[in-house]
Amino acid sequence: MWFGYRGKVVKVNLSNKKVSVEALDKQLVKEYVGCVGAAGKILYDMVPSWAGAFDPMNLLIFTTGPVTGTIVQSAGRFSVVTKSPLTGCFGDASAGGFFGPMLKFAGYDMIIFSGASEKPVYLYVEDENIELRDASAYWGMDARECDRAICSDLGDKKFEIACIGPAGEHLVRYAAIMHDDAGRAAARCGVGAVMGFKKLKAVAVKGAGKVEVADPEGLRKVMQEVLEFYNSAPIVKRLREGGTVAGYITMISIGDSPTYNFANEQFGEFDQKRAEKLGWPGGFEKILEKNSSCFMCAIGCRRVSKAGEGKYVLKEGSVEGVEYESLSMLGSDCGIDDVYAVNLLNDLCNRYGLDTISTGATIAFAMECYERGILSRKDTDGLDLKFGNADAAIELVHKIAKREGFGNILAEGSRRAAALIGGGAEYYAMHVKGLEMPAHDPRAFQGGGPHYACSPVGADHMEGISLFVEFSGQRFPELGIDGDYGDRTSTEKKAFVAKVIEDWWAFLTAAGWCLLVNPRYGAENRFIRAFNAVTGENITVGEALKAGERIYNLKRAFNLKHGISRMEDTLPERLLKEPNRKSNNAVVYLDKTMPEYLKLRGWQ
Amino acid sequence: MWFGYRGKVVKVNLSNKKVSVEALDKQLVKEYVGCVGAAGKILYDMVPSWAGAFDPMNLLIFTTGPVTGTIVQSAGRFSVVTKSPLTGCFGDASAGGFFGPMLKFAGYDMIIFSGASEKPVYLYVEDENIELRDASAYWGMDARECDRAICSDLGDKKFEIACIGPAGEHLVRYAAIMHDDAGRAAARCGVGAVMGFKKLKAVAVKGAGKVEVADPEGLRKVMQEVLEFYNSAPIVKRLREGGTVAGYITMISIGDSPTYNFANEQFGEFDQKRAEKLGWPGGFEKILEKNSSCFMCAIGCRRVSKAGEGKYVLKEGSVEGVEYESLSMLGSDCGIDDVYAVNLLNDLCNRYGLDTISTGATIAFAMECYERGILSRKDTDGLDLKFGNADAAIELVHKIAKREGFGNILAEGSRRAAALIGGGAEYYAMHVKGLEMPAHDPRAFQGGGPHYACSPVGADHMEGISLFVEFSGQRFPELGIDGDYGDRTSTEKKAFVAKVIEDWWAFLTAAGWCLLVNPRYGAENRFIRAFNAVTGENITVGEALKAGERIYNLKRAFNLKHGISRMEDTLPERLLKEPNRKSNNAVVYLDKTMPEYLKLRGWQ
Repeated sequence: MWFGYRGKVVKVNLSNKKVSVEALDKQLVKEYVGCVGAAGKILYDMVPSWAGAFDPMNLLIFTTGPVTGTIVQSAGRFSVVTKSPLTGCFGDASAGGFFGPMLKFAGYDMIIFSGASEKPVYLYVEDENIELRDASAYWGMDARECDRAICSDLGDKKFEIACIGPAGEHLVRYAAIMHDDAGRAAARCGVGAVMGFKKLKAVAVKGAGKVEVADPEGLRKVMQEVLEFYNSAPIVKRLREGGTVAGYITMISIGDSPTYNFANEQFGEFDQKRAEKLGWPGGFEKILEKNSSCFMCAIGCRRVSKAGEGKYVLKEGSVEGVEYESLSMLGSDCGIDDVYAVNLLNDLCNRYGLDTISTGATIAFAMECYERGILSRKDTDGLDLKFGNADAAIELVHKIAKREGFGNILAEGSRRAAALIGGGAEYYAMHVKGLEMPAHDPRAFQGGGPHYACSPVGADHMEGISLFVEFSGQRFPELGIDGDYGDRTSTEKKAFVAKVIEDWWAFLTAAGWCLLVNPRYGAENRFIRAFNAVTGENITVGEALKAGERIYNLKRAFNLKHGISRMEDTLPERLLKEPNRKSNNAVVYLDKTMPEYLKLRGWQ
Repeated sequence: MWFGYRGKVVKVNLSNKKVSVEALDKQLVKEYVGCVGAAGKILYDMVPSWAGAFDPMNLLIFTTGPVTGTIVQSAGRFSVVTKSPLTGCFGDASAGGFFGPMLKFAGYDMIIFSGASEKPVYLYVEDENIELRDASAYWGMDARECDRAICSDLGDKKFEIACIGPAGEHLVRYAAIMHDDAGRAAARCGVGAVMGFKKLKAVAVKGAGKVEVADPEGLRKVMQEVLEFYNSAPIVKRLREGGTVAGYITMISIGDSPTYNFANEQFGEFDQKRAEKLGWPGGFEKILEKNSSCFMCAIGCRRVSKAGEGKYVLKEGSVEGVEYESLSMLGSDCGIDDVYAVNLLNDLCNRYGLDTISTGATIAFAMECYERGILSRKDTDGLDLKFGNADAAIELVHKIAKREGFGNILAEGSRRAAALIGGGAEYYAMHVKGLEMPAHDPRAFQGGGPHYACSPVGADHMEGISLFVEFSGQRFPELGIDGDYGDRTSTEKKAFVAKVIEDWWAFLTAAGWCLLVNPRYGAENRFIRAFNAVTGENITVGEALKAGERIYNLKRAFNLKHGISRMEDTLPERLLKEPNRKSNNAVVYLDKTMPEYLKLRGWQ
C-alpha cells in the first residue's frame, strides 16, 4: 500500500511508441524523499555522458511529490527533469497549477519519456487509459491554442494539458512547458526544447483517483495550524493581497531586482517612481483583473490579467498575470516601465512557451550590446535595440520563438549568443553555466554568491535563494539558521545559510511544495509533520535536510559525469567588479564565501 | 612565405553570416604537422564540454594537409573534424577526390564553420571571392543532384562541391559529406549531420592558385622514386587492377571481413563461392564500368559503376563504384551476395549522403535483432528483415535517410537504436563508442583489439588498422616495426604495432596522404622527404611519429574534456567471447593487449 505516492510510473518510448506502466521504486523514493530526487537519480543513471540534450537518449521526466494532490496546502506542484540543452547540465523546472495533482489523480507519480518521435504526438492519460496520439493538428499552435484545442477535441475541459508552443517546436534553448491554459510554466533550463526535440507536443491528463494518506487525522491537524497561520500572519497577507509582485518595488529599491541588464545606473535610473509604474500597489493594478490560485492553496498568489489598453493590448483578457520574475526581467531589466508592454511581453512568452526569465535576460543582454556598439542595426534586422524600447522587445520575442533572423541567435540563450556575436559580448551575458540569472542580484545578498556560482543547474530562483533570510533577518532555528544574518552585504556565515536553504528547498520541491510557502507555514516542523502524515514515514527536519543535500549532490554528480568542470562555478564578471549602488555599493565577495561553501558541501 | 600551406583560413559564422579570412597559425601547424591536427587543436580549445554536437557552439572544420595540391602522389585529401553527434567524441572523417586540392588552389588550408544558419545556405569560394549564398533551392536534393545543380547554376563545371544529401538534412547521426559528383565521402562520425544541423547544404570551391613548395627539385626526385615503385611493385599492381575490393575475397577467407553482423556461421556460411559473387575478380566485374583515380594519384584505385541490370538498377550508370568497406558492410555483413543489390545500396547511400559502413552495420544489427526475435514485423513497418533480404535493406536505406517509421530509430545509429529497442539488443550493436565497426574484424588481427577499443573516435578504419602488418608480416624498420608480427592471432607486441600504426597514420592524414599508399611508397622516408621538400621543414620519421602521437593524444584529451570515460574503452562483447572460425577460432584477447597498450600511450 502506498501513501502519498500512487506507486506507478508511466514509461513512454517515443521512438517505438511503446507505453508501459511500472511500479515506482520504493527504495529510491525513500532515499530521495520524493519523486523529483528519484527522477534525478534515474536521469543520472540512464542518460549517458555522450548523449546531448537533443538526443533520443536524453530523458524527459514529469514528476510529482508525495504531498501533491492531498489536502496539504500549497503543494500542487510538478517538476520536469532532463539534460538541459541550455546548460548541458542537470536541468529541472517546476510549476504549480493543477497538472501535478491531476497526474496523481490519474494514478501516476511520474512519466518518463525516452526516445524521440518521428512525427508530432501527444500523450493521452485518463486513469488507466494511456495512449500516444497523433498531434500533427496541434503542431504550430501556440500553447494556449493547443491547450484549448486538445480539450475541445476531447470534449472535456477537465483535462489538464501540459504542452509546448512554437518556441519548443523550434528548439529555442529556453523554451518552457506550459500548462493551465498556458498560464503556468515549468520554464527553466529549456525543458520545452527537449519536449520539442522529442516531437512531444503535449501531455493531456485526467484522473478520478485519490491519493491515500497514512494519517488523515494528523494531517488535518497540521493543516488547521497552517491555515490559521495563513489567516493571521502579515507575511501571508502581503502575498495574498499583492501576489508575487508585492515585493517588487522594495526589491528594486534595495538593488535586488536588476535593472538594465544588471548594469543599473549606467543606462538610467530606475527609481521608486518608475518601479511604481510596474509594481503593486501601483501600475500593476492597471492590468490586474482578479486574484487566483493553484491547487489547494489558500494563499492564492496567482493573478489574472486584463487585455490592457492603448498600444499594447493582449489578444484576449482574463489570462495569466505577470509574476515577479517576469515583471522584473521583461520590464526593468530591459529598462521598460510600461506595464501594458510588460503584460503583453509576458503573454507572448506564455503563448510561445518561453521562459520569461531567460527571454527577458537575453533581450536585455542584446540591448546592452546594442547600446555599447557591439551590435548595430545591421545585426538586429534593423531593430533599434535601445534599452526601454518595448516595441523592439516585442518584435524580438516573436523572432526568438520563430528563430527568425536575429532571433535565431538569441534563441540560443545569452551564453551562446554572446559567443556567436563576439566582440566582447560575453561580458554582458548575465548567466551562470548558461542559465540566465533570475531577478535577484547576488550583490544584494551575499549568500547568493556561492549559491548561484555553484548551483548545478546554473543561476536559478528555485534552487535556494537565501534573500528571504538575509532581507528579513528572520531566524529559522529548526533549520539551524539561528543567528542574525540580516546584514545583506556581510559575508559572515552566508555560505552556510545558502547551503541550508538549498538543501531545504531541494527537500520541499521533492516533496511537492511550492517554495513560496517556505517562511509562510510558520514553523518548519509543519512541513515535516505533514510529510510524515501523508507518507507514513517518520523523518525529522534534519533527515529532510540530509535528503535535500543528497538531491543537490546528485545534480552536481550528473554535471561531473557530463564533463562540466569546476571552472564553471563562477559568476558573471560584472557582479564581481561593478558595485551595486542600491545595495551599499557591494559587489559579490565570492572569494570570501566560495571556499567556505565548497568545504560545507565537500566539493573542494 | 608559406610552402605547402597556403597560409589562410576562412572563418564562417553561420549564425550572423559573417565571413572572414585569417592567417593560418604557423606555430600551431608546425606543432601538429598539418592542418588536420591544428584543426583538432582548435576544436579542443573552442568547443566547450557543455555544447552538444547539434549546437551552434560546435565547429565544423574542413581542412587540408600541406602536401595536398602539390605533385606529391596520392595525397589529394581533405578532412572534416567536429564533435560527433554519433559518438559525442572527437569526430573526424577524411576523403580523397578533388575537393581538397581545389580548396588549396583557391588559397585556403582550412574553412572553420561556427554557428548555425536559420535557413539553408551554401558557401561559395572562388579564389578571394567568398560568399554565403541561399541554398533553399538545393535543400531536399540528393547529393548528386545538388552537386550538379550548383555547378549548373554557377555555369561552371570546374567547381568542386562538397555537400550533404537528405540524410544530413534529417540529422541522421551517420550522415556523410559527399563530393565529386557524390562519389567520394567524408563519411564517418556523422560529420554530415553536423553540416545539416548548421543548415549548410554545400561548399562550392574553385581556385586558380598554386601551392608553392620549398624544394621543387628535391620533391620531383622523391616522386620519381615513388612512381618507379608504383610501376614495379606487385602490391601496387594489385590495387591498381582490383581497386580496394581486390582484397575482399581473401579478407572473407581469413575472417577479417565480417559476415552476418560479425556472427558469421551462426546465420549462414559466407564461403569462397559467395565471396566471389561480390568480389574481384568475380561478380564485381558485372558492375564495373572502368577505373578512375583521385587527384594526382598514379595508383588509381577508384572504380566507376554501371547502372547494372535486372531487379537492382541504379538511377543512372557511370557513377562512383563500390569500395571494399561498402561491399563488405552493405553486402556480406548483411548476408547479401547480390552484387547488383550492393551496387544499388552503395549508390543510394552516396545520393542520400550516408556513411556506407554505419549504414550497413546498422542494418545488419537490425537484421540480427529480427532473426533473434527481438524485433518483429510490427516493429519494422512490416519489413521482413531476414539476413540477405536485399529488398528490405534497400527499403531501410530510404527510411533511414528520411527518418521514416523504423528508419527514424536506425537513423540514430546502432548504439542508440539498441538502447531504444531494448530486449537485449545492445549485445548485437557492433560499435565502439557509438561508431560502427568497419569491415575488419579484430579477431583476425590482435592489434585491432586495443586499437579499436581505445580509438578516440570509436571503431574506425582510418585511425590505424595494423592488419596490413599482421597479414603480410612485412617489416617497417623505419617505423620501428622490425620484428615478425605476421602471426595474426598472436598478441605478442601487437599493442606496440597498433600504436605505431596509429601514430604514423595520424601523421600521414595530417600531412594530406591517402592511407592506402602507406605500404605502397616503398620506403617510409619517402613520405618524410616529400614532406620536407614541400614544407621546407626538416623533420625525421621519429618526429613524424611524435607529431602523430600528439594528434592522437589530442583526440583523447578532447574526449576526456567532454565526459567520455575510460569505461568506454572496450569492444562489443561478442568479439571478446564468440570465436572467429576463419581466424583460427580466435577471440580478441583484450586482457592481454590492453594493459601494454595503455602503458605505451601513457593513458593508464
